[in-house]
Amino acid sequence: MLKVGIIGAGRIGKVHTESITKYVPNAEVKAIADPFMNDATAEWAKSMGVKEVYKDYKEILNDKEIEAVLVCSSTDTHSQISIEALQAGKHVFCEKPVDHDLGRIKKVLDEVEKSGKKFQVGFNRRFDHNFRAIKETVLAGKVGEPHIIRVTSRDPEAPPAEYVKVSGGIFLDMTIHDFDMVRYLSGSEVEEVYAAGTVLVDPAIGEAGDIDTAIITLKFANGALGVIDNSRRAAYGYDQRAEVFGSKGSVATANDAASTAVISTEEGIVSEKPLYFFLERYMQSFAEEVRQFVDAIVNDTEVPVNANDGLQPVLIGLAAKKSLEEGRPVKLAEFKF
Amino acid sequence: MLKVGIIGAGRIGKVHTESITKYVPNAEVKAIADPFMNDATAEWAKSMGVKEVYKDYKEILNDKEIEAVLVCSSTDTHSQISIEALQAGKHVFCEKPVDHDLGRIKKVLDEVEKSGKKFQVGFNRRFDHNFRAIKETVLAGKVGEPHIIRVTSRDPEAPPAEYVKVSGGIFLDMTIHDFDMVRYLSGSEVEEVYAAGTVLVDPAIGEAGDIDTAIITLKFANGALGVIDNSRRAAYGYDQRAEVFGSKGSVATANDAASTAVISTEEGIVSEKPLYFFLERYMQSFAEEVRQFVDAIVNDTEVPVNANDGLQPVLIGLAAKKSLEEGRPVKLAEFKF
Amino acid sequence: MLKVGIIGAGRIGKVHTESITKYVPNAEVKAIADPFMNDATAEWAKSMGVKEVYKDYKEILNDKEIEAVLVCSSTDTHSQISIEALQAGKHVFCEKPVDHDLGRIKKVLDEVEKSGKKFQVGFNRRFDHNFRAIKETVLAGKVGEPHIIRVTSRDPEAPPAEYVKVSGGIFLDMTIHDFDMVRYLSGSEVEEVYAAGTVLVDPAIGEAGDIDTAIITLKFANGALGVIDNSRRAAYGYDQRAEVFGSKGSVATANDAASTAVISTEEGIVSEKPLYFFLERYMQSFAEEVRQFVDAIVNDTEVPVNANDGLQPVLIGLAAKKSLEEGRPVKLAEFKF
Amino acid sequence: MLKVGIIGAGRIGKVHTESITKYVPNAEVKAIADPFMNDATAEWAKSMGVKEVYKDYKEILNDKEIEAVLVCSSTDTHSQISIEALQAGKHVFCEKPVDHDLGRIKKVLDEVEKSGKKFQVGFNRRFDHNFRAIKETVLAGKVGEPHIIRVTSRDPEAPPAEYVKVSGGIFLDMTIHDFDMVRYLSGSEVEEVYAAGTVLVDPAIGEAGDIDTAIITLKFANGALGVIDNSRRAAYGYDQRAEVFGSKGSVATANDAASTAVISTEEGIVSEKPLYFFLERYMQSFAEEVRQFVDAIVNDTEVPVNANDGLQPVLIGLAAKKSLEEGRPVKLAEFKF
Repeated sequence: MLKVGIIGAGRIGKVHTESITKYVPNAEVKAIADPFMNDATAEWAKSMGVKEVYKDYKEILNDKEIEAVLVCSSTDTHSQISIEALQAGKHVFCEKPVDHDLGRIKKVLDEVEKSGKKFQVGFNRRFDHNFRAIKETVLAGKVGEPHIIRVTSRDPEAPPAEYVKVSGGIFLDMTIHDFDMVRYLSGSEVEEVYAAGTVLVDPAIGEAGDIDTAIITLKFANGALGVIDNSRRAAYGYDQRAEVFGSKGSVATANDAASTAVISTEEGIVSEKPLYFFLERYMQSFAEEVRQFVDAIVNDTEVPVNANDGLQPVLIGLAAKKSLEEGRPVKLAEFKF
Repeated sequence: MLKVGIIGAGRIGKVHTESITKYVPNAEVKAIADPFMNDATAEWAKSMGVKEVYKDYKEILNDKEIEAVLVCSSTDTHSQISIEALQAGKHVFCEKPVDHDLGRIKKVLDEVEKSGKKFQVGFNRRFDHNFRAIKETVLAGKVGEPHIIRVTSRDPEAPPAEYVKVSGGIFLDMTIHDFDMVRYLSGSEVEEVYAAGTVLVDPAIGEAGDIDTAIITLKFANGALGVIDNSRRAAYGYDQRAEVFGSKGSVATANDAASTAVISTEEGIVSEKPLYFFLERYMQSFAEEVRQFVDAIVNDTEVPVNANDGLQPVLIGLAAKKSLEEGRPVKLAEFKF
Repeated sequence: MLKVGIIGAGRIGKVHTESITKYVPNAEVKAIADPFMNDATAEWAKSMGVKEVYKDYKEILNDKEIEAVLVCSSTDTHSQISIEALQAGKHVFCEKPVDHDLGRIKKVLDEVEKSGKKFQVGFNRRFDHNFRAIKETVLAGKVGEPHIIRVTSRDPEAPPAEYVKVSGGIFLDMTIHDFDMVRYLSGSEVEEVYAAGTVLVDPAIGEAGDIDTAIITLKFANGALGVIDNSRRAAYGYDQRAEVFGSKGSVATANDAASTAVISTEEGIVSEKPLYFFLERYMQSFAEEVRQFVDAIVNDTEVPVNANDGLQPVLIGLAAKKSLEEGRPVKLAEFKF
Repeated sequence: MLKVGIIGAGRIGKVHTESITKYVPNAEVKAIADPFMNDATAEWAKSMGVKEVYKDYKEILNDKEIEAVLVCSSTDTHSQISIEALQAGKHVFCEKPVDHDLGRIKKVLDEVEKSGKKFQVGFNRRFDHNFRAIKETVLAGKVGEPHIIRVTSRDPEAPPAEYVKVSGGIFLDMTIHDFDMVRYLSGSEVEEVYAAGTVLVDPAIGEAGDIDTAIITLKFANGALGVIDNSRRAAYGYDQRAEVFGSKGSVATANDAASTAVISTEEGIVSEKPLYFFLERYMQSFAEEVRQFVDAIVNDTEVPVNANDGLQPVLIGLAAKKSLEEGRPVKLAEFKF
């Protein structure tokens, strides 16, 4: 029974706690730490069977029984806490992104190597049943060599401008998942990025210095091309689709809905909208990523999303940002790392 | 170039004339006869390149150049005109149903045999791209031995009660196409029928002595079961679907729509309703049945829908009627023929 | 925290135990009893946090702390144990069917009334997301008055003949779920049944005195018609669909699949087969039915599937059996109750 | 009855001749000219009811009865013949592209203006039922302001390298249709283009100096973004899809198939591949574009695809070519016209 500590009791920290409790039979959450720990959260933790709650995450790092921690704190603390946890001898699962700064990510990667501990990054969508089905189809050779990787990723609602200001921009905040996805689906590294972007959803996003609508073209090391289209707001809900088109055909996924019901009336043939909320849409993937993290520790195997998988999407995101600013395609090699 | 005469210049007579003109390169319509022939119809015939228009269909029967006639007159004249045409040495394409009376159908069948001429019945749906795809899948053995044949057939609008009174009832007027379809798809003869029916669409239909909603269960000679569901009015339009379920799987068709467009908004995911009007839905099948009729004459091969195919659906329809009246399953063998 | 006892630790008893543990926050399983209780099962129970395991279910009935029991034992013991549990003052959730014998069901219903305790029957499919979506659409009036209720229910694999012999026959063993479904979807009682059935899947089923392929026509008190088609084996997997067609349109569901992936190659456009195994397909519904049972107890509200809902499908099943034997439609009123 | 002449009796010349004969009641083809006119073609023309066949297209230009010509000759002659026809007082329907050279297109546009005659360009896909449904949905305001226009356009088979050499390159030969489509669907002009392209389908295409796989990003005057993905070979057939995503939702089309049949077996759920051949896929659109051209002449209204619609896609294509060569986004304003 692997003992786990959760650092950060916000939305995603709670999701991981519940996942481990319900779906990971060979692990248990021993402690949860959050600087804003309060009675309600402590109560919830107790109902989950978690024995200890702290304000200071260092209590978790000092607990010798705890072998692994999940870093679910605010983004700006991810790299620092990860390093401390690795130094304390813990295996680390770090929520995405590891950091927005390449230098700090480098320090994490160095520490991972030095420590010899497991380090997994929280790109949960790889564990989603639909995207996994694409990946398996590609791996089975059914579509041949990949030629075009296509991701459509549109949020159901734009974030408030206040959030946008501290988000790192659409590419590091939202598209970063899609950057991970195209790497995952193509099985190759991105070498060059061209980003076109504009403000069409909410002028406040523009005033906050960001964009809300984007088309990003990618060139992969294996010669394939990729394309991502993003919007901060799809009126019909959370739109999450992908396609791999290759020499022998294509594999594509549609959105998930709450039911398969189709209503036919004088007005038309109506089916259900995509699941709206990301926690609902991706719940199963959150459980699966943590399950596999625990298995990698228990069996001492490779983690499914490693430190380099944490780095690359940030690099692509920074290249996309630069491409947008300078109006030209940008090579990842332009960034020193 | 096969010369053809059209008897009856109503809706379906006009459809066949246009089909031959546009899509049957080895035939031409030489003459059209209709007791209500008027200037407008004559003008239309001329625009189609038809040289002769008559009030009396006997003019067509007496024309030695005309080798084949299409009987598109009112239902009650089908059998009589067919017999006269066969006796005049013409090949005959007769619109469905041949007749509502078994004795009169028998006379037609006898004359067909005696004459040695081609005789085809207008069950056009067999030539529809969707139903044909089912048939070809079954013939290719892809679904194995047929176990269940299922037809959903719902009209977009109920007919007026006046029409219902002279229609012969839903089973001979509407379901007759479905009876033909289950024979076609199963490749077997119906032996027993149980019909449940009721009036839910329009009370006037009930007052006219008919029903508007029905479930019909069929037993086939090859052991398979069949089921048809009918409604005189589907609010969303003309619903025409079928499925053959067998030992190795199933093949099923959906409705055709005017486009594949799907509109996604806050209200839902909306696709187009089925094509509403039977002439629009089945236009291609009307052309194909006549093309194959002409080919059967020109090449002296079997017609694709023969005299027995004209008889059997009427027998099934009469059995369904009796079943409904007597509240029990009825064997076709109860009818002498 | 409602304390619950599980009687019967077979497949479904385990499912309910896990459901309560994971998804029903206001209940806990205190004890499990099974005449074949062994170390493996006891171990499993422990891992679920269940404190007590017994061979004799009476230990559970005697436990004053336990307020509700789930009767998951073999079918022939359902009615007897239910009665004893009600007499012991427990609320009862009884797996379907309550019994195959009307007299014994009557005794249960009498005891339910006498005891004033909650009694729910395990027709889980009502709690499935797809069928629930149909029901809600109908209740919202979107399809108007129901005219035709259609259920397609085909198993992925035929049971062994040994099982068939003791199953009570296809209508009480398999179709009973569909009989419940048509009642649920129509919102009306079945008054008459006509069943056509045959042996096409496995001759051994015929030798065991049962059928494996059926079409059942139903007449409802509200005037609507219903139709169910059954097969003991669909080569492509577990086929579970339904449609309600009404005066304003229709609502229909398709099968669930493991992903939305569509693979397009030279061979065709291929999507995933339906979920194969009933526990996988209906897992969410098993959790939901138990959750609502607990809520009904805690809040003292009506159970969502009551004793009469347990009786009616058995009545329909017996009528279907008689219809098949006598080759005629059978009224439920022919059965005394 | 408008008398029409066809210049060029190749594949598309024949298609237009048949369309006019069958589907355009207010026009007839009086003459066809082709430098390679032979007996077979003359015979075919006769069967279509065309009275005159020529080797020299000037015979058509000199025929005073002929009011309109369709320029279906080889691409390099389009502009010259169009100019001559306009000067001879004919209305002109010119196959796409008008020319690959901007200077020569300019001469055509000047002549169109000077002559006051109708001039339509053969971008037939605008008349396709699916793309038209998107356009009508956008015009009806159902998806709000367009944000992203997306076109997937993949051929079923790559052309031979010999053809590629004289084709003008993928952007002027194949993508030109998609450039027209994004203008049509967006209702706005393209201002900037970025093209990423590579050779993944056939090395011979690369040796011929062209690419076979491309992603093109477009910026529109109205602020929207566009993206086109192209491949010269989709193993599953002709892939022709589009989507307009806007402030209120999206409208998207799927491919057309020969039937709606779905085959479910142990191997999976299989539906039909897209229609393979462009003439089959777009047949209805070829008829419709010519019908509307004739109507525009007869009623003296605007043609649906005018001279500027012929120019813009060539400009976009040249910009895409330059973008690919120079590895940067290219503004259309960089081209003098």
